[in-house]
Amino acid sequence: MNLIEQVTNRAKKNFSDSKGSHDWEHTQRVYSLCLHLGKKEGADMEILKIAAILHDIGRKYQDKCHGKICHAEKGAGLAKELLSKLGVDKEKINKITHCIETHRFRGNKIPKSKEAKILFDADKLDSIGAVGIGRAFLFAGEIGAKLHDKNININKTKPYTKEDTAYREYMLKLKKIKERMLTGEGKRIAKERHKFMVEFFDRLNKEVDGIL
Amino acid sequence: MNLIEQVTNRAKKNFSDSKGSHDWEHTQRVYSLCLHLGKKEGADMEILKIAAILHDIGRKYQDKCHGKICHAEKGAGLAKELLSKLGVDKEKINKITHCIETHRFRGNKIPKSKEAKILFDADKLDSIGAVGIGRAFLFAGEIGAKLHDKNININKTKPYTKEDTAYREYMLKLKKIKERMLTGEGKRIAKERHKFMVEFFDRLNKEVDGIL
Repeated sequence: MNLIEQVTNRAKKNFSDSKGSHDWEHTQRVYSLCLHLGKKEGADMEILKIAAILHDIGRKYQDKCHGKICHAEKGAGLAKELLSKLGVDKEKINKITHCIETHRFRGNKIPKSKEAKILFDADKLDSIGAVGIGRAFLFAGEIGAKLHDKNININKTKPYTKEDTAYREYMLKLKKIKERMLTGEGKRIAKERHKFMVEFFDRLNKEVDGIL
Repeated sequence: MNLIEQVTNRAKKNFSDSKGSHDWEHTQRVYSLCLHLGKKEGADMEILKIAAILHDIGRKYQDKCHGKICHAEKGAGLAKELLSKLGVDKEKINKITHCIETHRFRGNKIPKSKEAKILFDADKLDSIGAVGIGRAFLFAGEIGAKLHDKNININKTKPYTKEDTAYREYMLKLKKIKERMLTGEGKRIAKERHKFMVEFFDRLNKEVDGIL
C-alpha cells in the first residue's frame, strides 16, 4: 500500500458519523478538484493529494464543540502526527500541514504555497454551483431549517434555526466566493459555478410566486 | 373575515410542527400556482382557492403513522367537517373535497373536475424545477441522507436511509412528472421546470467529478 492509500484509509475513519453536507464525499470532491486544478497550475501533486485527503480530518472536533476548535488547525496537528508515524520526512510534512492549516484562510492563516492556494480554491468551489446548492439545502434540512424565504433579512435571521434557509447562506456567503479565488483555474471554474447559482436562485424566487 | 380567510386561519394551525419540505409554505406555493393556472384555465376560483388551502391538512396524520393513512382522503374528511361548521353549502363542499381527495391521483381517486386537475398539477409542479430541487435536498437532509451518488442504484437503494439521495428521488419520480400533467398551462410550466432540473443534475454529475 503506498503512502496515499495509507493516508486515505486513516482519513476515511474520521468521517464515519459525519453528516451529508460535510462528509467523506466532500473530501473526495475536493480531491477531484485538486487533481484538476493541480495539473492546470503545475502543483506538487503528492503534497496536494495528501493535503486534500486530510484537509477535514479535524472537522468532527470542531462540530462537537460548536466551533470552539478550528478544524483547520486541529487537522494540521492530526496530520502531522499521522504523517510522522508513517515515516514521512519533516519538510514534506510542513508543506502538507501548511495547506491544511490555511485552507480556511482566516486570521493570520494565509495560504502561501501554490498547493495551499489550490486546496483553498477547491474547498471553496465545493460550496458553489450545483453541488453548493445541493449542500446548502441538505444542510438546511439537517438543522431543521425551512425551504425558502425570498424576503429573508440576512442580517437578522439566526443560523441553525427554523427560520434559516439555504438562501441566507447564498446571500451572505456563497455569492461572494468567486471573488476570493486564488488561482487562475479556480477563478474560471468559480465564475461558471457562480453564474449557475445566480440562475438557480433567480428561478427559485420566481417559481415560489407561481410565475415560472 | 371572509370564508377564505377563515379557512386559511384554520388550515395554518395544522402545520405548526411540520418539516420544511412539506410545510405551510408548500401550501402557499401551491395556492399561488393555482391562482395562475386557474386564471389560464378558466376555473371556479373560490372552489380552487379553498381546495388549495386545505389540500394538505391531512398530511400530519399520514406522517405520524408512516403512510398508513392517506393524507388526501383524511384531508377531504377534515375539510368536509370544517366547511360544514362554517356553513358552506353541500354542493360547494362536494366540489372542494373532490379536489382534495383526488390530488394524489392514486387508485380510483381520479381528478375529474377542472379544479381538481389544476390542484393536482399545482401540487406536482411544486416537486420539480428549482423549488423541486431545493425540496429534494432539504428532505434528504431531514432524513439524514447523503448529498449525492451519481451511480446510485435507484431500485435497490432504500428510501429514508443514509444511502438515499435527492438524485434517487429525481430519477425515480421527479423526472417523470411532466408526463403526468392534466392541464395545458400545467404542461407548459412542467416542461420548463423539467428542463431546468435536467440541467441541474447534469451539471451536478460533472461537478462532483471536478470537471465543471
